[in-house]
Amino acid sequence: MPSMLAAVKRHNHLALVQKRLPRLKPGWALVRVRMAGICNTDIEILRGYHNFHGTLGHEFVGDVVRVASARDKKWIGRRVVGEINIACAGLGFRGRRQCSYCRRRIPTHCERRRVLGILGHDGAFAEFLALPAVNLHRVPAGIPDEAAVFTEPLAAACEILEQVDTRAHHEACVLGDGKLAQLIARVLRRTGLHVVMIGKHASKLRPAQLAGIETALSGSRGSRRENAFTLVVEATGSPSGLTMAQQITAPRGTLVLKSTFHGAAPVETWPIVVKEITVMGSRCGPFPRTLALLRSGRVDPRPLISRAFTLKDAAKAIRYAQKRGMMKVLLRVS
Amino acid sequence: MPSMLAAVKRHNHLALVQKRLPRLKPGWALVRVRMAGICNTDIEILRGYHNFHGTLGHEFVGDVVRVASARDKKWIGRRVVGEINIACAGLGFRGRRQCSYCRRRIPTHCERRRVLGILGHDGAFAEFLALPAVNLHRVPAGIPDEAAVFTEPLAAACEILEQVDTRAHHEACVLGDGKLAQLIARVLRRTGLHVVMIGKHASKLRPAQLAGIETALSGSRGSRRENAFTLVVEATGSPSGLTMAQQITAPRGTLVLKSTFHGAAPVETWPIVVKEITVMGSRCGPFPRTLALLRSGRVDPRPLISRAFTLKDAAKAIRYAQKRGMMKVLLRVS
Repeated sequence: MPSMLAAVKRHNHLALVQKRLPRLKPGWALVRVRMAGICNTDIEILRGYHNFHGTLGHEFVGDVVRVASARDKKWIGRRVVGEINIACAGLGFRGRRQCSYCRRRIPTHCERRRVLGILGHDGAFAEFLALPAVNLHRVPAGIPDEAAVFTEPLAAACEILEQVDTRAHHEACVLGDGKLAQLIARVLRRTGLHVVMIGKHASKLRPAQLAGIETALSGSRGSRRENAFTLVVEATGSPSGLTMAQQITAPRGTLVLKSTFHGAAPVETWPIVVKEITVMGSRCGPFPRTLALLRSGRVDPRPLISRAFTLKDAAKAIRYAQKRGMMKVLLRVS
Repeated sequence: MPSMLAAVKRHNHLALVQKRLPRLKPGWALVRVRMAGICNTDIEILRGYHNFHGTLGHEFVGDVVRVASARDKKWIGRRVVGEINIACAGLGFRGRRQCSYCRRRIPTHCERRRVLGILGHDGAFAEFLALPAVNLHRVPAGIPDEAAVFTEPLAAACEILEQVDTRAHHEACVLGDGKLAQLIARVLRRTGLHVVMIGKHASKLRPAQLAGIETALSGSRGSRRENAFTLVVEATGSPSGLTMAQQITAPRGTLVLKSTFHGAAPVETWPIVVKEITVMGSRCGPFPRTLALLRSGRVDPRPLISRAFTLKDAAKAIRYAQKRGMMKVLLRVS
């Protein structure tokens, strides 16, 4: 029986185990992982978020090595990234048997949804993973692995462009200076908006400055801009972010929420009402648009890489990713 | 010196005092109040919300008895209701001297804003009040005082129609069974939507049923409808409302926030992100549309009147309004 190395959640840490290779259902593909990225969601999951107990990881680039159905043969040998939401189509439901979201072509909200490395399906911190072929996207040759591995979080940043008409704004504020905030700021900057990033770490604000983004340290005079921004993106990953975001959002402004931390935060909601703010939850985004952006070179995420570890050192890598000042930590798998 | 009776905030209760009649600035009108309504905001203000210390009251119908400027003479003798936000135009700022919101014709968010009986300007629980003539709307003859006095809160309900395209929905849920929730449910029902009201008081759900609204008691099986509604209006006035509202809102759904209670509530915000919910704060609404609705008779707010008191009994009235099961309590002033 073929087996593989995988990093699975054991209580609040990652454990390296030997696992059977994933079985392929019809329409699925087996991907040999080249490289995987550590996301804050992985860290939240170790803290209990989503009550997930399998192989972690949902950011990856890899090669298709096997497919279950003859019609998918064209995928074999292709370098791919994969959408993480496994929806009706991937689970074998067709036509009217699909849920209402899949029928409306919103598979990211599928009622039967499983999510790679997050919900009911083993993830990418392993030598191999399985995904429906419909989830896969070929990576253009011009994009190196180190950039392609950012496709999933960069797509989450691009989701904002699907939700908000950025042409209605001159300026945007990104609250937070972590990995996702950095990608969001770069994506918004590329639309022509003036972008201000407000964060807690001078060391993390510096790379943003190099990318043409104005920055301000939280608590500094430059960060106190009540009602100043018609577009604010809250990506602090912290419970206090929403309160500050409400303060700096202008009346009738748009506040995009990206943080998915575990637990409740005390929030005064009356400013949302009194200022008639529109708060938009924003999650997974469009892979084709994101791959095109990576291919164009207009956003290069590679300066955000802090360090790469091998899969064997996954536990060490995820501890390292939680150290102060760390950005993206990668796992080199094959 | 002419004086008048007024009910002002003293610590956490209403006190009856003799006051000078309001002075009129150019462009302002003096209104003899016929009837005023007690709103939950008045009760919140007595609890400390907005730190307001003047004459309470912002829902009224009255007659214009004097104007400061000759050009406003046409108003004299007119029965009117009034918009509560006093903005640049009313404060004498014209053209480029107006704030950015007033220049964009959003005076409800004026940066210099004062609000009748709420923020920096004496309100309607008095024999007379002063407002800029631009804030006034003539009440058509067919609308009795007891209905006209609902114009302000009914306009707040109608604001939802300005913000949300109700044609994109088949059904809406109104969370809450208080005065504002009742008006919202009736306004949404009149657009042709099937409306479900979820509330805590069987006695308050009954009048909604009579108006063709489906109802369910909070906590009952009928109220547990996870992801069931593409449009939800949170009008509970209570900190727990937002959490339940998030649960019943469908992925990619719209959640309109109406509650402006005092203080912070512990809220888990990740469902907004994961379900990509759009949360819209919603406050004051359009008076002309609302007066047209009242005139048409398609929404009759009068069954919501619990009791009317005289202005002299204002303190008693506001205590009565806080009793269990009470709906709209009115003050008959002149």
